[in-house]
Amino acid sequence: MKIGIYGYGNLGKGVEYCAQQNPDIEVTGVFTRRNPESVKTALGAKVYSAEDVLKYKDVIDVMIICGGSATDLPKITPMLAKDFSVVDSFDTHPKIPEHFNNVDKSARENNTLALISAGWDPGMFSLNRIYAESILPYGKTYTFWGKGVSQGHSDAVRRIEGVLDARQYTIPKESALNSVRSGENPELKTRDKHLRECFVVARDGADLQSIEAQIKNMPDYFANYDTVVHFISAEEMAKNHSELPHGGFVIRSGKTGENNSHSHTIEYRLTLDSNPEFTAGVLIAAARAVYRKKNRGETGCITLFDVAPADLALDTAENLRKKLL
Amino acid sequence: MKIGIYGYGNLGKGVEYCAQQNPDIEVTGVFTRRNPESVKTALGAKVYSAEDVLKYKDVIDVMIICGGSATDLPKITPMLAKDFSVVDSFDTHPKIPEHFNNVDKSARENNTLALISAGWDPGMFSLNRIYAESILPYGKTYTFWGKGVSQGHSDAVRRIEGVLDARQYTIPKESALNSVRSGENPELKTRDKHLRECFVVARDGADLQSIEAQIKNMPDYFANYDTVVHFISAEEMAKNHSELPHGGFVIRSGKTGENNSHSHTIEYRLTLDSNPEFTAGVLIAAARAVYRKKNRGETGCITLFDVAPADLALDTAENLRKKLL
Repeated sequence: MKIGIYGYGNLGKGVEYCAQQNPDIEVTGVFTRRNPESVKTALGAKVYSAEDVLKYKDVIDVMIICGGSATDLPKITPMLAKDFSVVDSFDTHPKIPEHFNNVDKSARENNTLALISAGWDPGMFSLNRIYAESILPYGKTYTFWGKGVSQGHSDAVRRIEGVLDARQYTIPKESALNSVRSGENPELKTRDKHLRECFVVARDGADLQSIEAQIKNMPDYFANYDTVVHFISAEEMAKNHSELPHGGFVIRSGKTGENNSHSHTIEYRLTLDSNPEFTAGVLIAAARAVYRKKNRGETGCITLFDVAPADLALDTAENLRKKLL
Repeated sequence: MKIGIYGYGNLGKGVEYCAQQNPDIEVTGVFTRRNPESVKTALGAKVYSAEDVLKYKDVIDVMIICGGSATDLPKITPMLAKDFSVVDSFDTHPKIPEHFNNVDKSARENNTLALISAGWDPGMFSLNRIYAESILPYGKTYTFWGKGVSQGHSDAVRRIEGVLDARQYTIPKESALNSVRSGENPELKTRDKHLRECFVVARDGADLQSIEAQIKNMPDYFANYDTVVHFISAEEMAKNHSELPHGGFVIRSGKTGENNSHSHTIEYRLTLDSNPEFTAGVLIAAARAVYRKKNRGETGCITLFDVAPADLALDTAENLRKKLL
């Protein structure tokens, strides 16, 4: 199957790397809104102008859209779904129903198939929530994020006067994790679940106390959390904080049996060196499923909830049963 | 939907309890090969003779078969699939392809739908293996079992001369777990992965040294493991070892990106107070999927690999996307 990569930032590059690990997948090209000649791909994929994308309508089986959820995907996914079967990693949770409806309309009208919100959350975490709740209906599900870099929070710190660079790590609190794992089904406030740790490079002579106070009191982003702020040098930032690790936990504990006296805990944990590269792995598997389902005549918008796991896998159904069941 | 429970041991009872937690499911009755009058159900489900099962052919939507994998399921699942859509928890891994083919033939010839091997391994662990390998193709998957009671190993110890009762716990070795979690992708021998701990009630005057030696040297079951044997009283056995806890881990670590320099770890962990009751939860969710897929015209044999997660869940697709995606 032939894929196109629409957008070539960290995520698009991750898709190019991941495609190489999948022998059934070939990258037809990367589509960029920048000047194609200015983009150099990691593994030599061809680069085309986004304006020329329709020329590849009959060549590309699935277009993987690698854009941001804030402004790119809400426009680009419905637009490209008119001419391509597509996959995206739309991750603004409250806006998923709206995005789904927009993409579904576009895909249905044009007989294409679109899969949205493939990644780790939404994505693998969502799958673990739905499986866990289906098999343990009487219980409670908790999602923790981190330890990892939150790009939105890092950006928010960077916008403060006197800040040259910043990296924010979201860290789940061990006490909360242990309470959840024990089956206590605690009521956890925002502050109980996660700690926020910021590494900040400040301009020479900046008022560090004021910067720290502005961070800690920032509504929505930090005010409801315990926040730790470290001021570091630009060199230390470059040396120790240049990667984009992330991860987290989905934990459900539930009760069964006589008087609900038996407790069960399901824990799913991701520890990722590179958030975009792991997301790329989910996008590639989702693209494989879209290709197969499209060939079976399915159209409209779907999510990973609608995909049988066998459709994500490279191997035959018979081998999968033999080796992995 | 109306379910039947065929077989009423620990697993059948677990299904009866779990059905109560699912408002869309009604238990039509329990079918037993014993004298129905001798069977008292936990929540009052009606008990019928297994011989009368065909009388309920048009009443029951899905039959959940709660039998052992050694001798029961290989016969009963293909037999019942002639007249019912069925679910079982067949768990003899090497014989899954053969069992699948037998059930598939029976189901196809009679236009029924059968789902086999629903439980936690095979079952939830299998799902985690297939998802993890699909999204991280370059990597290695490890499965650990325990801490939990292995019924087969407990039975093997009970067959030793002088043993009145025995319980065997399979325990994953922390050193192996940590090595796997670190992304080292170690080569692990049988002895490296699991420890076996036995609690034994011996007859008065029995030769304890001989019993211990017979356990530790038993081929296949214990000889390739580090095994610890404790002799305890019947009272202590009844007090501390009457439950059937189990659980385990599926861990995949994989590499991505430039020179495969980024490492990722996916860990799925189950901690179960009651092995049969958790398995029952998976069987119930699988029965829901079978009911829906049968109504869409599907026939033959399937596994959880062929089931889209949304088909396992009680809620509507729209709500699932809103709440769990």
